[in-house]
Amino acid sequence: MNVLGIDIGGTTTKVGVVAMGGEVLDSQHFATAHFDNAQALAEACWQWLQASGHSIAAIGIGAPNGNYYKGTIEFAPNLRWKGIVPLSTIFSQRFSLPCFVTNDANAAAISEQLYGAARGLRDYLVVTLGTGLGSGFVANGELIYGHDGFAGELGHCIVVRGGRECGCGRQGCLETYASATGVVRSALEWLHNTDQPSILRQIPEDQLDSAAVAQAAHQGDALARSIFDQTGDLLGFALANAVAIMSPAAIIFFGGLAQAGDLLLTPTRRSLEANLLPIFQNKIDLRLSTVPASYAAILGAAALAFSELR
Amino acid sequence: MNVLGIDIGGTTTKVGVVAMGGEVLDSQHFATAHFDNAQALAEACWQWLQASGHSIAAIGIGAPNGNYYKGTIEFAPNLRWKGIVPLSTIFSQRFSLPCFVTNDANAAAISEQLYGAARGLRDYLVVTLGTGLGSGFVANGELIYGHDGFAGELGHCIVVRGGRECGCGRQGCLETYASATGVVRSALEWLHNTDQPSILRQIPEDQLDSAAVAQAAHQGDALARSIFDQTGDLLGFALANAVAIMSPAAIIFFGGLAQAGDLLLTPTRRSLEANLLPIFQNKIDLRLSTVPASYAAILGAAALAFSELR
Repeated sequence: MNVLGIDIGGTTTKVGVVAMGGEVLDSQHFATAHFDNAQALAEACWQWLQASGHSIAAIGIGAPNGNYYKGTIEFAPNLRWKGIVPLSTIFSQRFSLPCFVTNDANAAAISEQLYGAARGLRDYLVVTLGTGLGSGFVANGELIYGHDGFAGELGHCIVVRGGRECGCGRQGCLETYASATGVVRSALEWLHNTDQPSILRQIPEDQLDSAAVAQAAHQGDALARSIFDQTGDLLGFALANAVAIMSPAAIIFFGGLAQAGDLLLTPTRRSLEANLLPIFQNKIDLRLSTVPASYAAILGAAALAFSELR
Repeated sequence: MNVLGIDIGGTTTKVGVVAMGGEVLDSQHFATAHFDNAQALAEACWQWLQASGHSIAAIGIGAPNGNYYKGTIEFAPNLRWKGIVPLSTIFSQRFSLPCFVTNDANAAAISEQLYGAARGLRDYLVVTLGTGLGSGFVANGELIYGHDGFAGELGHCIVVRGGRECGCGRQGCLETYASATGVVRSALEWLHNTDQPSILRQIPEDQLDSAAVAQAAHQGDALARSIFDQTGDLLGFALANAVAIMSPAAIIFFGGLAQAGDLLLTPTRRSLEANLLPIFQNKIDLRLSTVPASYAAILGAAALAFSELR
């Protein structure tokens, strides 16, 4: 049995036919902004599927602000389609098949259970460290959607009261520190507010990104390393509070910033352990995602469809 | 069908035969410290049940540090029985019946679903405001135990980094502020550190309790009201972060300090809303427990047994 996995991003929509074992049989990319509405995207996906010759049993969609219960995306800031878009209905009608929708972090969480670092776990959480910080919490083997489908917003837990301005309108949210964007904000703050020498000073500010900070840290740049230490400190602190609530067996990191590896994981683990209640200390496994990065988004969406079909 | 509900507390053990609808058919109290070990308590409960003439199908036990998966209590600081006590095995063997164990806050959470303010809800959390702060989280209709049975420690989420010393060995845990003990600590701090007049100054310090602070606040005492405002501020802040993770439909308050009612709920709600991500604002229902207080502990333990039998 195959399903169609669709990941709708602000720039690119990725579509793939996925077999139950996680094999991507065929895939395609579309420029999301090319489509005036979701109907046009559904049509393009349908045409592509017909041409591919594969048959599918269901559709899974991961999308920013995707709501599992309603099957909608709502006011996604990075998409042209404004207001509430009934994605599930639109795709279900075009394909005459069941269609399930969730946000990209929840899709990633299910994907780790089926194909990645969470195989065999019933209680874990996945943290996606990209432009923002997304998260998906799994307890008793099931994803936690909450009463309204919007659960799992670890990135909007406040870690510094009165801290950095966040896009959500509040201050001090974790994602203003622990994300690719947060790392760049930290770098700019440190470069402006200190005289500390750093190879980052050779990079034009508008070209500074988290990969450059990671590279500098790997080269031993003290300022860049301090930035990762501070990032890990706040991430570990927030995770310690999440562990007190959920007691997961493992925390799995995914996304561009997670590729910094031990540079981020070492200070995160240190802060996590220092802030954990004793009964949780030295029990929580911090892991990097093992879902193949190139297909992770498609696999996440497909995993949602498979998990709903079961 | 009836079950036996047992609540083991540091001072008193309460036992009751409970019918499925929540009717307590018969009940008894024992002085916990009277028993040298859990076997002796099991024997006393069994003797009492024989005398009562009721028959039961299972046993539910709520106990401090009760572990659902292992059926044990582990190093409970308020009990004479030290080390790991295999409660479930001991009671199962004496009664030749299935026996289920959890901590008192988790038992309270299940009890609200069966008999109280969480009827019909699949996603909610119960906060017990007593000497400490306990919590039970329910998602997808199921209690979250975590991978090791120790989930639900909202009281040990850190809300003030470097804040008050906590019994757990760390600093700034929510329960050092938002609990009966925390309110008294706040009162003593304010009385020592300010010259603000207050009727609390007429009470000998070693007799000051949270009920006295509540009474003073109800009488309009400004200092006492400030204490509840500060308590609600930190409680609402911690709850806002918990909501970002879980997105519950309701938060239900139980326990002695919850009896302060709007004195605590009003500032808690204000702080919760001020710290919530916009998508969660004006959605979360704050409720007081509606489980009859006199039998709440027994009903909680019985609810665990019924929920396991189903």
